[in-house]
Amino acid sequence: MNSQPTTQDAVSVRLVQMREVMKREGVDALLVPSADPHLSEYLPGYWQGRQWLSGFQGSVGTLVLTADFAGLWADSRYWEQAEKELAGSGIELVKLLPGQPGPLDWLAEQTPAGGAVAVDGAVMAVASARQLGAKLAARDVRLVTDKDLLAQIWHDRPALPLNPVYEHLPPQATVSRADKLAAVRQAMQEKGADWHFLATLDDIAWLLNLRGSDVSYNPVFVAFALIGRASATLFVAPSKVDASLRGVLAADGIELRDYVEVGGALAAIEPGARVLVDPARVTSGLLDNLAGEVQLVEAINPSTFAKSRKSEADLAHIRRAMEQDGAALCEFFTWFESAVGQETITEVDIDLHLSAARARRPDFVSLSFATIAAFNGNGAMPHYRATDESHAVIEGDGLLLIDSGGQYLGGTTDVTRMVPIGSPTLEQKQDCTRVLKGVIALSRARFPRGILSPLLDAIARAPLWAEHVDYGHGTGHGVGYFMNVHEGPQVIAYQAAAAPQTAMQAGMITSIEPGTYRPGQWGVRIENLVFNRESGKSAFGDFLEFETLTLCPIDTRCLLPALLSVDEREWLNTYHATVRARLSPLLSGAALAWLDTRTAAI
Amino acid sequence: MNSQPTTQDAVSVRLVQMREVMKREGVDALLVPSADPHLSEYLPGYWQGRQWLSGFQGSVGTLVLTADFAGLWADSRYWEQAEKELAGSGIELVKLLPGQPGPLDWLAEQTPAGGAVAVDGAVMAVASARQLGAKLAARDVRLVTDKDLLAQIWHDRPALPLNPVYEHLPPQATVSRADKLAAVRQAMQEKGADWHFLATLDDIAWLLNLRGSDVSYNPVFVAFALIGRASATLFVAPSKVDASLRGVLAADGIELRDYVEVGGALAAIEPGARVLVDPARVTSGLLDNLAGEVQLVEAINPSTFAKSRKSEADLAHIRRAMEQDGAALCEFFTWFESAVGQETITEVDIDLHLSAARARRPDFVSLSFATIAAFNGNGAMPHYRATDESHAVIEGDGLLLIDSGGQYLGGTTDVTRMVPIGSPTLEQKQDCTRVLKGVIALSRARFPRGILSPLLDAIARAPLWAEHVDYGHGTGHGVGYFMNVHEGPQVIAYQAAAAPQTAMQAGMITSIEPGTYRPGQWGVRIENLVFNRESGKSAFGDFLEFETLTLCPIDTRCLLPALLSVDEREWLNTYHATVRARLSPLLSGAALAWLDTRTAAI
Repeated sequence: MNSQPTTQDAVSVRLVQMREVMKREGVDALLVPSADPHLSEYLPGYWQGRQWLSGFQGSVGTLVLTADFAGLWADSRYWEQAEKELAGSGIELVKLLPGQPGPLDWLAEQTPAGGAVAVDGAVMAVASARQLGAKLAARDVRLVTDKDLLAQIWHDRPALPLNPVYEHLPPQATVSRADKLAAVRQAMQEKGADWHFLATLDDIAWLLNLRGSDVSYNPVFVAFALIGRASATLFVAPSKVDASLRGVLAADGIELRDYVEVGGALAAIEPGARVLVDPARVTSGLLDNLAGEVQLVEAINPSTFAKSRKSEADLAHIRRAMEQDGAALCEFFTWFESAVGQETITEVDIDLHLSAARARRPDFVSLSFATIAAFNGNGAMPHYRATDESHAVIEGDGLLLIDSGGQYLGGTTDVTRMVPIGSPTLEQKQDCTRVLKGVIALSRARFPRGILSPLLDAIARAPLWAEHVDYGHGTGHGVGYFMNVHEGPQVIAYQAAAAPQTAMQAGMITSIEPGTYRPGQWGVRIENLVFNRESGKSAFGDFLEFETLTLCPIDTRCLLPALLSVDEREWLNTYHATVRARLSPLLSGAALAWLDTRTAAI
Repeated sequence: MNSQPTTQDAVSVRLVQMREVMKREGVDALLVPSADPHLSEYLPGYWQGRQWLSGFQGSVGTLVLTADFAGLWADSRYWEQAEKELAGSGIELVKLLPGQPGPLDWLAEQTPAGGAVAVDGAVMAVASARQLGAKLAARDVRLVTDKDLLAQIWHDRPALPLNPVYEHLPPQATVSRADKLAAVRQAMQEKGADWHFLATLDDIAWLLNLRGSDVSYNPVFVAFALIGRASATLFVAPSKVDASLRGVLAADGIELRDYVEVGGALAAIEPGARVLVDPARVTSGLLDNLAGEVQLVEAINPSTFAKSRKSEADLAHIRRAMEQDGAALCEFFTWFESAVGQETITEVDIDLHLSAARARRPDFVSLSFATIAAFNGNGAMPHYRATDESHAVIEGDGLLLIDSGGQYLGGTTDVTRMVPIGSPTLEQKQDCTRVLKGVIALSRARFPRGILSPLLDAIARAPLWAEHVDYGHGTGHGVGYFMNVHEGPQVIAYQAAAAPQTAMQAGMITSIEPGTYRPGQWGVRIENLVFNRESGKSAFGDFLEFETLTLCPIDTRCLLPALLSVDEREWLNTYHATVRARLSPLLSGAALAWLDTRTAAI
């Protein structure tokens, strides 16, 4: 990422240069999404062309450039930042609203008939490219995907990351790569596929029991994989894999080729072959390498389903990681409560102290996402991040929201807690209590195995809806096993499409994180991770229930116990008894005393 | 409907004749669905060809016939009946299970490449015909839709119904047909449509403020409608509309043409015109009349959305209809409780007495569906219907389920109540109490306007899921206004697709009817109708809530009050106080005393 904010002058020059390129190439409009060939959440600098060209540093946004228009589409999380960063650049902020037309619709409407729209196919999912292509074709506009126009003017483009790849080893790696490959080949055979091509970094890392650090927070490395019925090729920069690992992989039948050779390898797939790909997880630019006679078998990557279902052996490691993570949180909170009011503590300090507490824990690898420490009004921005330049001091009265998590060799954590500062108001406590009611309602739910996960969202939201309160984000996302903190296929969100692949299955780990956001005032979110375990079979079918994995006190000083039902209070007291029992052995002294206090029954 | 069961000999002869026709016509397989050109729930005898050809009298089932196979696909509701009725006919019962391949898949797999499958396009929705056509084309099989093979051998086919059409008049008709037509034309204009073709009988009856009695329970008449920008044509058998009504319609600009002229009228639509149709609500046979140059604009019928949203004026009539319906139920229950144990009462007697009680009420028109009176094991079949030949006597101990409803000039009712007989068991009371908890949970829910209705289902089911109990049917269906008791677009069912058109909007009427079915033992269902009313606006959006419309005591003798929370008991007591207040003015004597007893607070 550019460490220096781009000056508006630099952006203006780039736009002029790009418009010259577009003219030369006969392109009427250029689309620059926030994406890479792996469709990752976090992008290496090499693929941050949209940031470079627009000057907008937010992680999600889409730039559209024509001869006489430049617009950046961004959702509400980024409006404030985008307005600041785009000011004076000549780029208009277009506010993206759910259900409203987006940049693809704009292009379909505004490009003159007979014209051409360019997007680098290397960074656009097949499914999106098809959607855009169809919209444009209906208006007699061509979609050009075989050109990376940025490359013509971006001369100081960052290199691709070259961090080393390493093995995820037993005991935390509980299934061998040979067994995982065999399962994927079984799925290929069921679908009649000769080949399976993978571009998504978490699928590749999971399948091969490898990890890396090429992007922020996700322990993955930049690579592609091509699985045959008997062969398996990993496309990765050669310098990233040392000789020893090279030998280990070769012994498991995994051939290594250079990252840049992937296109040629795809082009070499024999005509008539059937290739299994997930059209939402592979880009059109990559598939354009395939010979015309190659047949696509389109389905979700088998590894996406497989990695979502953690085994009992995984779960044993995850429970230990949760204990270590909870202990780190207790140590942090012990420091925080002793220091707040005594010294100046900023949101940035919270990140530093909490990260340090996690780093002291065994098997800690990295944070699993950027810590959100957000005081009062800052908490009302669900994706707020304090910076050295802009942050709040924790002082006075109110609510502090801390959303944080770690990567451990034996699991990935993600937890949000509310901290009372001074004397929170009655309304703040009401909000915290109602959000907790939502957490409890869903945490206690049982449900039929295979129910589509978006259909469970109403259970968490009902206590908030009862007070005419709602929140714009999902209630729950899937979580990996020492892997991405956001993974599919399940998603507990009424805003999401209830597609068949979102079905709840035993072994999945999901967050439960309802919230309430009052812009400019405060935000509330409480988040636990939960595990889908078997609840029992009956004449009516198989049922699942949740085991709460996250172990960290929920500060009862933020609550109005009178708003909790007897059952809800019992849930909270039982949870706190579990937290105390599981974390006590890992703590001592002041932190142990803090744990006892904060887990007292109400 | 055939009043005499078809003999197996007659069916065998028909199958032989039909196979000869198929051979002559070069058809390898014949598909006979349970459908008519209006895609109605209840079919006139003229369109009951599947019953006639197979001998299976159930209302839903699909026959597939080839030279050496005859199979009838039916869902679990009909297995017992189908096995009985198909025995000895040479037709195999194929048990249709949710998520399993159906007859269309069977045809796609079993028909030899190069072969032909025939279905009468006149009775197959465009969307289904496309789906089948695509499946067959992938296997190089032709779909033939322009032949009604049944007509060649069905010589005593019943005539189309010729019952009179009548007006739905003010005060119950609260919007004029001119205003409704104007709204539909507005929707046509927004979609750039020149014409709008309607085949669904409830859409036509609603749009033109007309009613009829051509099919059971739904107050509709067999017709088509073609709406132009300035014209409107109703295709209906001339004898059904008397001179006076003809004049009224002419004054509103509605031209009448014979029902059989619809094909010619569609064929006459000018090339280049754009015709708005709902591909799920119009058959491929009808659209085959359109010239090739006519463009389809595919969308849900605008009237489907419009009629789902009842006005405040409608609501005033509906409330009165609910009061009359509730009073009829009270009078019935008063008789029932005095008579049960004193005289022999069968499930059929219940239907007779309850129907008579409704018929005594002002503005009663007909039942809105066949009464389900089901004692003990019969109650475990959600669509059970007692007949003169097969029914239970109400005696001993257990649970009686009564699901019934009426059509009134000012509304449509649908209510299910449980009646304790003798001494219900603890488990029976547990089931009733949990089902009631589901009713209460959803009845009290608030939710964002526009939420997709299937997403609310989990709120009703959570109390049942908690005990590993579930039920196979939906929790709620839309209900018309003196119109079909089942109407869309909303549906509260996790089994249903959460499509955009299922969004909850103010004014909709929906059932809430969770259940529990223990095969061979007993069934429980409790059902109220609820109205989507505005709950309030907040910073988080617009919210809706339900007003419970149905007014009938919920027998507390079936309940275990200890299983109800304080809030749930309060809901029930408040509901009963409302029922008592609203129904008392319509009752006297024993029925009034019964109402007082059965609405006592717990």
